[in-house]
Amino acid sequence: MEGYRTFLSLLACSLLLGFLGVLFALVWVFHWREGLSWDGGLAEFNWHPVLMVAGFIFIQGIAITVYRLPWTWNCSKLLMKFIHAGLHCIALILVVVSVVAVFDFHNAKNIPNMYSLHSWVGLTLVILYAMQILFGFLVYLLPFAPVSLRTSLMPLHTFSGIFIFGAVIATALMGFTEKLIFALKNPSYSTSPPEAIFVNTLGILILLFGGFVLWMVTRPQWKRPQELISKFQPSTGATPDCTEEVSTATACSNDDKSDVEFNSEAAARRRKLDEAGQR
Amino acid sequence: MEGYRTFLSLLACSLLLGFLGVLFALVWVFHWREGLSWDGGLAEFNWHPVLMVAGFIFIQGIAITVYRLPWTWNCSKLLMKFIHAGLHCIALILVVVSVVAVFDFHNAKNIPNMYSLHSWVGLTLVILYAMQILFGFLVYLLPFAPVSLRTSLMPLHTFSGIFIFGAVIATALMGFTEKLIFALKNPSYSTSPPEAIFVNTLGILILLFGGFVLWMVTRPQWKRPQELISKFQPSTGATPDCTEEVSTATACSNDDKSDVEFNSEAAARRRKLDEAGQR
Repeated sequence: MEGYRTFLSLLACSLLLGFLGVLFALVWVFHWREGLSWDGGLAEFNWHPVLMVAGFIFIQGIAITVYRLPWTWNCSKLLMKFIHAGLHCIALILVVVSVVAVFDFHNAKNIPNMYSLHSWVGLTLVILYAMQILFGFLVYLLPFAPVSLRTSLMPLHTFSGIFIFGAVIATALMGFTEKLIFALKNPSYSTSPPEAIFVNTLGILILLFGGFVLWMVTRPQWKRPQELISKFQPSTGATPDCTEEVSTATACSNDDKSDVEFNSEAAARRRKLDEAGQR
Repeated sequence: MEGYRTFLSLLACSLLLGFLGVLFALVWVFHWREGLSWDGGLAEFNWHPVLMVAGFIFIQGIAITVYRLPWTWNCSKLLMKFIHAGLHCIALILVVVSVVAVFDFHNAKNIPNMYSLHSWVGLTLVILYAMQILFGFLVYLLPFAPVSLRTSLMPLHTFSGIFIFGAVIATALMGFTEKLIFALKNPSYSTSPPEAIFVNTLGILILLFGGFVLWMVTRPQWKRPQELISKFQPSTGATPDCTEEVSTATACSNDDKSDVEFNSEAAARRRKLDEAGQR
C-alpha cells in the first residue's frame, strides 16, 4: 500500500479524534449537565448528543472507512459488506434511540418539536440514512440486482453516504450551538464559561474527525492495490474470495496505479465489477 | 460531454438555489430585520449573513464549479485560472467586509467577540480560505513551482477547497441558528413564526446548493473529455492554448473515459500535467 504509514497515522488520528468526541460528549453531560437517565427530564435529553456523536458520527465514520483498512483486503468481500452494513445498522439504532429521547423530553416538557433548522435537517438526514441503508441492502447485499444496476448506482451510493456524513456533522454543530445558548444562562454562553469552551472544542474535534475520514475515503492510492488482484487472480478471470476488491466507500479512484490497471481491458472489466460491489 | 443535459440541469438547479439563497438573505434582513447600513447597529450586523451567503457560499460555489463548464473548455487554461482565482478573491473581499461588520457591531454594542462555536469555526475558515488562495496563487498561477510540486500538491488543493466550502455551509447553518434564537423573542423561535420558517428554508436552500455543487465537481464524467485533447493535440505532444485541460476543481477522476485515456503512456503523462495545472 502506497503511503501505508501515512494512512495508519491518519487512521490513528481519526480514531483518536472520534474517541475523544464521544468522551467529550460523555464528560459534558455528566460533569456539566444532569447525566443520563430515561425519566422525561434533561437527563433523558442528554442521550441525544451522546448517542448522536457515538452513532451518527463516530460509528458512521468507521463504517465508511472500513473498506480502506489494508488488513481487511484478504477477507471476503461479503464479510466486509456485512461489517460495513452492520456498523451502519448499529449507528442507525443509536440514532433512532437518540431521536426518541429528544422527542420524549420535548413532549414531557411541552416544548414544541421540529421548529429549528437543526431538527429539520437532522430528521431529514435520519430518514435519508435509513433509506441509504435499505438501498445498500437491496442493491449490494441481496443477490438480485444486476451488475449494470449496481455499477450505475454506485456513484450515487458513495456520494450520498459521504454527503449524509458531512451534513450530520453540520447538524451536530448546530445542535451544540442551540444547546449552549439555551442551557448557559448564568454565566451565559457569551462570557465563555468552561462548559462553553469544552463543547466548542467538542465541535472542533468532530469537524476534524470528519475531515480526516473524508480525506481517507477519497484518496485513490488507499484503495486496495490492483497488483494484489493480479497477483492472486487466475488467468480465467475468477477471483478467489480472499483477494476481493474493496471499493464501496470509494467516491473516486483515479491514481498512479490506475495507469497500470487501465492498460488492459481485463483490468477495466475487473474494475467495473469492483465498483459494482460484485466481487 | 457525457450527460450534458443532466449537467446543465444540475448547474441550472444549483445556480437557482444559490441565487435564491442570496435573495432569501436579502429578504430576511430587509423584511424582518433592520435592513442594511454601516452605523454600528443591527443593520450593520446584517451585512454579515448577506455577504457570507453571497460571497463565501454562492461565489465560492461558482468558483469551484467554473472548470466544469463545457463552454470554457476551448478557452486558455490561464484565463480559466484567472477566473477561478478572481472569483475566489471577490468572495474573500466580501467575506472580510462581512467579518468586519460583525466585529464592528459587537464592539459598538459591547458584545464579546469569538465566544461561539460559529465564530471559532468561521474565523478559522476565513484564515484557511485566504491561505488556500495564496497557496493557489504561489503554486498554480506564478510560473515558478515545478511540475512535481504542482502534481503532488493538487490533491491537497482540491480537497481543502472542497472541505472549506462544505465547512462554510455548516458554519452558516450554525449562524442562522444563533441569530434566530437571539433575535426571535416574542414570538420565540420555538413557536415557528414566519421569519423562523423563512430562515430555516434559507438553510435548506444553502445545504442543497452545496450538495449540487459537490456532486458536479466530483463527477469524473464531467471533466473535459479526453477526446477533445487528442483531437487537437499535435503528435509532438504540444498542446494549443485553446484545448487545455481543466482539472483544478477536481477531487477525483476515475471514469469510463479513463479506460481510453490510460491505454497510452502519453495520455497518462498528459493527465499528470493536467492534474498539476500545468497545461
